[in-house]
Amino acid sequence: MDTKTIGILGGGQLGRMLVEAAHRLNIKTIILDQPNSPAKQINALDSHVDGSFTELDAITKLAKKCDVLTVEIEHVDVEALKSVSKSLNIPIYPLPETIKLIQDKYLQKTHLKSHGVGVVESVDVEENTPEALAAIGDSYGYPYMLKSRTLAYDGRGNFVVKNAESIDEALTFLANRPLYAEKWCPFLKELAVMVVRALDGEVYSYPTVETVHKENICHLVYAPAPISDTLQQKAQILAQNAVKSFPGCGIFGVEMFLLPNGDLLINEIAPRPHNSGHYTIDACVTNQFEAHIRAVAGLPLPKNFTKMATSATNAIMLNVLGEDNKNGELELCRRALETPNASVYLYGKESKPKRKMGHINIVGSSMEEAKAKLDYILGQEASLPAEVAEKEKPLVSIIMGLDSDLPVMAVGANILKKFGVPFELTIVSAHRTPHRMSKFAIEAASRGIKAIIAGAGGAAHLPGMVAAMTPLPVIGVPVKGSTLDGVDSLHSIVQMPRGIPVATVAINNSTNAALLAIRILGAYDYKWLEEMSKYMSNMEEEVLTKAERLERVGFEKY
Amino acid sequence: MDTKTIGILGGGQLGRMLVEAAHRLNIKTIILDQPNSPAKQINALDSHVDGSFTELDAITKLAKKCDVLTVEIEHVDVEALKSVSKSLNIPIYPLPETIKLIQDKYLQKTHLKSHGVGVVESVDVEENTPEALAAIGDSYGYPYMLKSRTLAYDGRGNFVVKNAESIDEALTFLANRPLYAEKWCPFLKELAVMVVRALDGEVYSYPTVETVHKENICHLVYAPAPISDTLQQKAQILAQNAVKSFPGCGIFGVEMFLLPNGDLLINEIAPRPHNSGHYTIDACVTNQFEAHIRAVAGLPLPKNFTKMATSATNAIMLNVLGEDNKNGELELCRRALETPNASVYLYGKESKPKRKMGHINIVGSSMEEAKAKLDYILGQEASLPAEVAEKEKPLVSIIMGLDSDLPVMAVGANILKKFGVPFELTIVSAHRTPHRMSKFAIEAASRGIKAIIAGAGGAAHLPGMVAAMTPLPVIGVPVKGSTLDGVDSLHSIVQMPRGIPVATVAINNSTNAALLAIRILGAYDYKWLEEMSKYMSNMEEEVLTKAERLERVGFEKY
Repeated sequence: MDTKTIGILGGGQLGRMLVEAAHRLNIKTIILDQPNSPAKQINALDSHVDGSFTELDAITKLAKKCDVLTVEIEHVDVEALKSVSKSLNIPIYPLPETIKLIQDKYLQKTHLKSHGVGVVESVDVEENTPEALAAIGDSYGYPYMLKSRTLAYDGRGNFVVKNAESIDEALTFLANRPLYAEKWCPFLKELAVMVVRALDGEVYSYPTVETVHKENICHLVYAPAPISDTLQQKAQILAQNAVKSFPGCGIFGVEMFLLPNGDLLINEIAPRPHNSGHYTIDACVTNQFEAHIRAVAGLPLPKNFTKMATSATNAIMLNVLGEDNKNGELELCRRALETPNASVYLYGKESKPKRKMGHINIVGSSMEEAKAKLDYILGQEASLPAEVAEKEKPLVSIIMGLDSDLPVMAVGANILKKFGVPFELTIVSAHRTPHRMSKFAIEAASRGIKAIIAGAGGAAHLPGMVAAMTPLPVIGVPVKGSTLDGVDSLHSIVQMPRGIPVATVAINNSTNAALLAIRILGAYDYKWLEEMSKYMSNMEEEVLTKAERLERVGFEKY
Repeated sequence: MDTKTIGILGGGQLGRMLVEAAHRLNIKTIILDQPNSPAKQINALDSHVDGSFTELDAITKLAKKCDVLTVEIEHVDVEALKSVSKSLNIPIYPLPETIKLIQDKYLQKTHLKSHGVGVVESVDVEENTPEALAAIGDSYGYPYMLKSRTLAYDGRGNFVVKNAESIDEALTFLANRPLYAEKWCPFLKELAVMVVRALDGEVYSYPTVETVHKENICHLVYAPAPISDTLQQKAQILAQNAVKSFPGCGIFGVEMFLLPNGDLLINEIAPRPHNSGHYTIDACVTNQFEAHIRAVAGLPLPKNFTKMATSATNAIMLNVLGEDNKNGELELCRRALETPNASVYLYGKESKPKRKMGHINIVGSSMEEAKAKLDYILGQEASLPAEVAEKEKPLVSIIMGLDSDLPVMAVGANILKKFGVPFELTIVSAHRTPHRMSKFAIEAASRGIKAIIAGAGGAAHLPGMVAAMTPLPVIGVPVKGSTLDGVDSLHSIVQMPRGIPVATVAINNSTNAALLAIRILGAYDYKWLEEMSKYMSNMEEEVLTKAERLERVGFEKY
């Protein structure tokens, strides 16, 4: 696609996935890292450079073969990058200045703060002394976080100062490292957003995800995060604003905290592809690695290219860490291979305890579906959710107050059956089984029900009461009793107060209730829309045939 | 994932994509093909074999380094494979016997026919003489297809015998090739299904797709095919039955014709990944290449792993062929990169006219969306469909018979506005603008409307008439007139005949109509379900506060 050759400092899994993305676009990549590193394994195109991304000589050697340099890790030698960029006149993205800022977590926070981006309150530890730490404790209270300003990742270099007594332990643990302290931040959730910045300054953000850590290492990512749309957007805007403060181009992983009051504060930023963005390989059409390659190579980044692949896409990413018994983690991978819509990515590394060996992506039309599969992969469920059950999951629920309503309701049930709509039918009484009714109403939506048909006679409270306890559309069928011709049920069901609608159909007309339910399904599922259209044209046909016969034989003989 | 090393005969684009899939699973692959072939470019892991997949020596050399062999092309030396399999005791999938059967298209058809699988009627040409061809013309009529039994692909080796006069031309064109003839098959569409067969004999089929050819080369693939669910399934079953007739394991591409009477006939089968399955890279979680690798390596193939990634997934694949001006096809690729949710795959080949250089996948929540993007990529549209328009498309339509209904209907409109539901509001009268009404009703679903709210007073025919002309859910609001307290409108709207339901709400209660519409949206879109839940808990809160105050101050003072 492009004649530029991209040099990558670092050949770990992130570099490997960058190379994969570049291959697909016929873009040449050259790796600087140890021989046979994960990224080099999958690239026979070029002569790679053996060495370290912290050595000037090796970086110079790489730069001489390339048109542009990038990194898969921020712990590179920035001064070497600056000097190579100058002497060889080669662009480097992210900019060495950005890497330098981000390498030092305290400088990173100060920088973001000076750009008006919300970050956790923090202070530099000028001297690593018990007095300095005690002073911070006096100011911030306990516990507070003590962090190494540099070379910290996956929680290494962090220490929780629980109280004044643990200050000595903290100083021992983080001896000889440049430190800063952060105010304790009791967050509700950890969120993350991948943001791509193009050379023209335009930024694009992937969906906001929730990250779950285990022993400070990313364990799970839920995409999208289970938060409101408003928060989703707020997090993306925060991440975009943060990335706008760094000139140059490339992808950034922005990690943040969601506080109980709904505020968002940035925790830290990585100037490269990020573990929290691995879900994009399966959930988005253009994944984070391709986005980075495109940004660095100056290829198009269209509006909205960072959206999920479809409106129904939900994904979970699970990291695969090396287990104590070598290759023990492959059992997890095998379970993933046994799971439909799960993908396994292994990085070509030798198995070592706690090492990031690979990751697993699970994709589904709903987060519930993905979670059920995750439970199986994690070994928390002995078997996969039955596919039959999944297939047969009812979309419509027919309920009635008493079995005496069945003759009326069965007509509607037969319509659903004729259309092939998966449905359930049961007795739920507002007056006689109020607890069963609330459980039913509360759980209906999460069970995948899309519409509820409730039949009732007389005082006919069932449809209205169910409607009051579910956000789903409820269709009410007034059942005709022995008196009043059913007008009582009709009024009771249709004349609902403002705020809680019941879609009322004619007295005893469960046929129309079923047809309305199918129309509700059809509003979002083309299959049912088509079925309904067919049904309607058949109905038209029938009437036209009758009309034709009536006209032909005359009304007296008809 | 597996300690088996897979040897692949052929290192073209199919081999390249097999290698990519194997990399992700840490499975070693070794390629037999010319140096620097597409598959070798992306694999630095092993010492590949340079040579041809039609040479015994080269195959033997490959087999000695591997635990299992497979092919990316069927034009291999079957006898060599058989002898290597025997002498080195190495499994080969697909089985050499299968490859042999499939290499000869006439034997392939006879084999399928003998297994009860529907194929186009065909006959062997025993001698390549004008007399033999004329006899076939007498029996089949003209035109008929004359095809080379072997070494034919992308339409090379096919000749349409238009009439008796073109027999000589046919014999010249296909001189010295073993021939067979096929009855002319005037199909409606060409369909294709990828089927994976596991070693235990279980078969799994990907969705049925439509393929569109241009000058005999696959041009476009629509996934899923725009056909009924019944045909979708029928095609999958036909493909499964065909593949069941071949022992061994691996993936098969099954191409078929859909006839005007709804019958399906198999055209031909490829015993390997197939161009018509490239869409699976973006539309399915486990793509055709990984499926083949898993089958050949004996890794798990779970039930339903071949389904689309989500219920909303629609995809189009566009082949990228080399243009007459070298690399001219990159313009097409650039347009794809400018398109959100489009992916470009280039195969690392030198550009040559008509050569398969790569492919483009477009994914969308609807086929319409994907098609609009395809039009841009093909240069048939100067610009991409406006994203703004896409965002603001109304989901709910509020209509009323006359502007005098507006005060009642505006209340509901305000509810939709408050919830942020995109909606439209207009006047459509059943009695005064019947044509406008039918156009409105007929087009509503295709415009993306999910629910219609219709307000009407008096005879109040609008909701029912609209419901009669759309398969969407219609919500009726009886508007109170100056007489009868609105009971006339209520009865007129609610008492619809069996067959055409109107979801009727209380008199003048457009609030509930709007809330019901939001519930209908919420049935399929979590966003609205959540909004409705919030609204309901606020409502509860309000009443509880009132109850608390009432109890506190007493009813006399309240």
